[in-house]
Amino acid sequence: MIYFRSDYSQGAHPKVMEALAKTNLEHTDGYCMDPHCENAARMIRELIGVKDCAVHMMVGGTPCNVTVIAASLRPYEAVIAVRSGHAYKHETGAVEATGHRVIAMDSTDGKLTPELIDRAMEEYDDEHTPLPRMAYISQPTEIGSLYSKAEMTALRDKCREKDLLLYVDGARLGSALTSDKNDLSIEELARLCDAFYIGGTKNGALFGEALVILNKAMDDHFRFMIKRQCGLLAKGRLIGVQVEALLEGGKDSIYFEMPARANRLAKRLRDGLSALGVSFYSESQTNQIFPVLPAATVKELEKDFFFYEWAPEKEGMIPIRLVTGWGSEESDVDAFLEKAGELLGK
Amino acid sequence: MIYFRSDYSQGAHPKVMEALAKTNLEHTDGYCMDPHCENAARMIRELIGVKDCAVHMMVGGTPCNVTVIAASLRPYEAVIAVRSGHAYKHETGAVEATGHRVIAMDSTDGKLTPELIDRAMEEYDDEHTPLPRMAYISQPTEIGSLYSKAEMTALRDKCREKDLLLYVDGARLGSALTSDKNDLSIEELARLCDAFYIGGTKNGALFGEALVILNKAMDDHFRFMIKRQCGLLAKGRLIGVQVEALLEGGKDSIYFEMPARANRLAKRLRDGLSALGVSFYSESQTNQIFPVLPAATVKELEKDFFFYEWAPEKEGMIPIRLVTGWGSEESDVDAFLEKAGELLGK
Amino acid sequence: MIYFRSDYSQGAHPKVMEALAKTNLEHTDGYCMDPHCENAARMIRELIGVKDCAVHMMVGGTPCNVTVIAASLRPYEAVIAVRSGHAYKHETGAVEATGHRVIAMDSTDGKLTPELIDRAMEEYDDEHTPLPRMAYISQPTEIGSLYSKAEMTALRDKCREKDLLLYVDGARLGSALTSDKNDLSIEELARLCDAFYIGGTKNGALFGEALVILNKAMDDHFRFMIKRQCGLLAKGRLIGVQVEALLEGGKDSIYFEMPARANRLAKRLRDGLSALGVSFYSESQTNQIFPVLPAATVKELEKDFFFYEWAPEKEGMIPIRLVTGWGSEESDVDAFLEKAGELLGK
Amino acid sequence: MIYFRSDYSQGAHPKVMEALAKTNLEHTDGYCMDPHCENAARMIRELIGVKDCAVHMMVGGTPCNVTVIAASLRPYEAVIAVRSGHAYKHETGAVEATGHRVIAMDSTDGKLTPELIDRAMEEYDDEHTPLPRMAYISQPTEIGSLYSKAEMTALRDKCREKDLLLYVDGARLGSALTSDKNDLSIEELARLCDAFYIGGTKNGALFGEALVILNKAMDDHFRFMIKRQCGLLAKGRLIGVQVEALLEGGKDSIYFEMPARANRLAKRLRDGLSALGVSFYSESQTNQIFPVLPAATVKELEKDFFFYEWAPEKEGMIPIRLVTGWGSEESDVDAFLEKAGELLGK
Repeated sequence: MIYFRSDYSQGAHPKVMEALAKTNLEHTDGYCMDPHCENAARMIRELIGVKDCAVHMMVGGTPCNVTVIAASLRPYEAVIAVRSGHAYKHETGAVEATGHRVIAMDSTDGKLTPELIDRAMEEYDDEHTPLPRMAYISQPTEIGSLYSKAEMTALRDKCREKDLLLYVDGARLGSALTSDKNDLSIEELARLCDAFYIGGTKNGALFGEALVILNKAMDDHFRFMIKRQCGLLAKGRLIGVQVEALLEGGKDSIYFEMPARANRLAKRLRDGLSALGVSFYSESQTNQIFPVLPAATVKELEKDFFFYEWAPEKEGMIPIRLVTGWGSEESDVDAFLEKAGELLGK
Repeated sequence: MIYFRSDYSQGAHPKVMEALAKTNLEHTDGYCMDPHCENAARMIRELIGVKDCAVHMMVGGTPCNVTVIAASLRPYEAVIAVRSGHAYKHETGAVEATGHRVIAMDSTDGKLTPELIDRAMEEYDDEHTPLPRMAYISQPTEIGSLYSKAEMTALRDKCREKDLLLYVDGARLGSALTSDKNDLSIEELARLCDAFYIGGTKNGALFGEALVILNKAMDDHFRFMIKRQCGLLAKGRLIGVQVEALLEGGKDSIYFEMPARANRLAKRLRDGLSALGVSFYSESQTNQIFPVLPAATVKELEKDFFFYEWAPEKEGMIPIRLVTGWGSEESDVDAFLEKAGELLGK
Repeated sequence: MIYFRSDYSQGAHPKVMEALAKTNLEHTDGYCMDPHCENAARMIRELIGVKDCAVHMMVGGTPCNVTVIAASLRPYEAVIAVRSGHAYKHETGAVEATGHRVIAMDSTDGKLTPELIDRAMEEYDDEHTPLPRMAYISQPTEIGSLYSKAEMTALRDKCREKDLLLYVDGARLGSALTSDKNDLSIEELARLCDAFYIGGTKNGALFGEALVILNKAMDDHFRFMIKRQCGLLAKGRLIGVQVEALLEGGKDSIYFEMPARANRLAKRLRDGLSALGVSFYSESQTNQIFPVLPAATVKELEKDFFFYEWAPEKEGMIPIRLVTGWGSEESDVDAFLEKAGELLGK
Repeated sequence: MIYFRSDYSQGAHPKVMEALAKTNLEHTDGYCMDPHCENAARMIRELIGVKDCAVHMMVGGTPCNVTVIAASLRPYEAVIAVRSGHAYKHETGAVEATGHRVIAMDSTDGKLTPELIDRAMEEYDDEHTPLPRMAYISQPTEIGSLYSKAEMTALRDKCREKDLLLYVDGARLGSALTSDKNDLSIEELARLCDAFYIGGTKNGALFGEALVILNKAMDDHFRFMIKRQCGLLAKGRLIGVQVEALLEGGKDSIYFEMPARANRLAKRLRDGLSALGVSFYSESQTNQIFPVLPAATVKELEKDFFFYEWAPEKEGMIPIRLVTGWGSEESDVDAFLEKAGELLGK
């Protein structure tokens, strides 16, 4: 079985494993109050060129999203997201569990736009509705598309106009930053939003994400919030150690090298499938692609390959999701293309 | 600096690290839907001699406590605990965050008793108060004491009488099971409570606890609850792999060996300090001890040893907590005793 | 200024005021544990022909909706409603405040349909999404349309198929029951849903709604839930007394007489406006109508009449909401029609 | 049956009923956006001598307490109260339902003191505990005792020192203000706390309390919070109309006259029982008294009088609560004293 299921189906990059092994016998204080977390935070501040932001080591993406939202919003406030956004679509109502509505806006390309924000604000216009207070987006989006620098700037401007915080879910941020189509650097991103996270789980860590809070008002007593939301890891240094390993070398680190490679493999898949006449559910520019295949072909492919069916069958066709990860191999891609070619009779 | 700070100041037992390294390149499905989690659950069912209980791999102790409580109680229901109980004392209101009161009962030895339950039930007696529905205890307690088999049985009986669920926080369960004073086996524990967890974080894992739910009614849609409470790990197999490594060999596994050794070192500390005339804050029978020392001695010891002051200074004396872990050394203990002896002039 | 603002702009029907005055000096126990609440519940059970349902006297509609949802759903469960539904649209996130998502489905006629439920169930299909568990509807809908007996039956069947509870917000139930177009009696309604409420606030009471719970599982410890959600009135009998006054005489009571009259006045308005060539935003069959008028006409009418603009101006036209209440007069209607006729040049 | 059950066992003072009847046919806007609520707020500002505070008309006491707490605290923050405090003891966990712990401190006289606050702050001292942020008290307390001006000032000072908000539950404020023992005027109270409410339900209204928020930071978007917490009454003017009637005449209004009378009747009861050799559970100085009587006497009294047993029988004695209200009669008191005298053989 070859996995295109997700970018978290394997363990960690060997360098991450080495770092964990090497530091294993150190004694440190718990709950992210240790030198590794401190150093990892320093490395991130340097990478993004912001000296005084807060950096918190978080266990996973959902804890990041939920803790940021619960910490930043007053009880009657709400988050605007696209319907496919992770915090709306894949978190079993974890945001609502903290008392906040996620306002889901329909979007064809996975992106939230100033127009969608305007539309949401029109619908939410008096004291009998929740008050929108944050825009939640992912870079790249859940369907692999990217916000350009111009789009992100326009979004930031709209957020300021409407008094919304702008939060960026960076579960696959490495993949965005290393996409051929990307024109938004991490330094620029950090200047255009109020908070974002640098995802580790989907980019070569065992687990862990580094949450960067640029807007100081959002960081007030944030560690209380992490604990209250059940996200404070006892051996918190494990996240610090992993982030150190991922970012060692800055822009030459494995944090950039891994997704660049995964993006190349995804492009190889996409190009190969395109050559077979396959069309796509979304214009993904990163390590996830969404080919639309005949249902019978999908069922046949599932015998050798493990991947998600992304949406229900419609007129005989099924959109699937193929994801490449840090450990994907060129041979995996070629095997898929060969089998698909056979099945499609090309 | 020598650490008696906590049993989670180091990484994982070498066998755990080996297991993680060995399985690192495997591809598996995420979210604990993998063969390692399945196997770890099977090993636990065998260990406790219960065939059809649910076992969930959890990231940490607070997520265990909070998810169990939120999943098991109706909105108006409450938990009874002792004031020193972790879910009341050390979780920043994470239980209340899910809408439930923790009723804190004063206890001198860290234990909840049938009498304390009766007292709580008397105070909470009509529809203008929350309805107690769960007793939360820890084995061992937060201050190192143990429930005997007779005590646990009496508690279970009282819980049945009052229609309370009985949940056991097993963050340091290994330490209880291997204490000289323990007469309650894990098989017996599993028959006396509705749910408990086998703690990994404080017993040689990087992180992770195995939650065992004996009462099927409490397991309904539990995975939805884990996700909703932000506790579902993407690379969930990491917990399964660690539990496999910890429990390999059953009662001869490192899960039992490590705390037995830590208990012995704690006993050596306790006996050594007793010999120096030191008295103790609690009658701990596990890997945590609570000597009460002159404030000046404490301050001096803090130069070489890292530990918690457990309570504020009172009449010149400070109770401190010394914890031995899987990686503590006999030489650490001896160094402490030597220094304490010097300082106490013995 | 003539009010078509809402059906709650005046106080209570004189008979309700009389009943309150007459019982004012009685001493009774509080919190709805009194003979009036008991009698009112008995009258309702008789009216709907169900002997053993629970009836709770509630302060208002939002408390009804929120308490029923919070009491009936487990934490990870969600409610399906139309986007214009009161619990989604006009309650400032009060449902989410209890941790539950309201899934908002787009509907053109204000009604939830089996097809919309199917669509929601398809979107919410695994453990990474909330689990839909209740369908929330209003009879009549927020835009004045009615569920026919056939539609309600189809909805009930779909709910059973999908294991959804069916809850009916009856804020204006009287208006539905007395509409010319209605074919669904209150007895039938009570057999087709799991819970509904008989609204008083918008039908001649000072305040108060009678919540009827047919599905016993939803009534477990419900009074705890009312108190926990801040909805238990100290002088609870006030609601019982009002319900008694409203329902005295059963189907010949003012509870039916008032909305029948308001519906007639609304129809007179609708017919009059139709005759002036005005079109309507919705096919309302009750005491709310939604004419679409030129913006300038609306602004002019607002000088003499008080009503809501229902949606933003679009292509020069504004849909407004005109509501008749128990105290509306024929002369109010005629004055509006005359003025509108003048302004529209007819 | 004669009622000493509560001060809310009857309806409203005749002047309140008159005001409701007189304004019944007025049309006004809903949700407390009407001239009566506005005027009532103006009257309160004048009464307390504070020009720019916020005044909100609330349905009841629990909605006041819960909405203020939920609106003022960040998610990880907690409230300090005495164990007998209403928000802890009699609200079915409504505060916890909003995610906040109520820290219950033991107190013998029903009062929170600077010392109790210090003790709570010591227990809640790091990021693994909730952060105390508000002191909740009642004037008078649940057991009828009063804070003196000196005590309230000391409490305010301690709150400032510890960065706590000070909130006063004034369910029976009228009773405090008119007690013989009171030395704290409403003007002074308003200067010593951050928010308080002027209770109507227990002082001659059908329902309704006027919440006064002195600390502007606590009033931010408060109406959103009222609605979200299900407390915004559609016919909100009803509360305004009642408050107008209660406060007409300022210090000479029925708001002061009624509790002065009830206090006198309670004193007559207390003195009469004292003369019979009865002792008391608390030193109440208001309209609630807590005599401790032989169990057999209590059972006998319950045949003619309706009151609460306040605590379980202990050594043959039961503390009961007798409450006088606006409608209690001297003859009620005399009947009780006579019967008690007979039973006690005096």
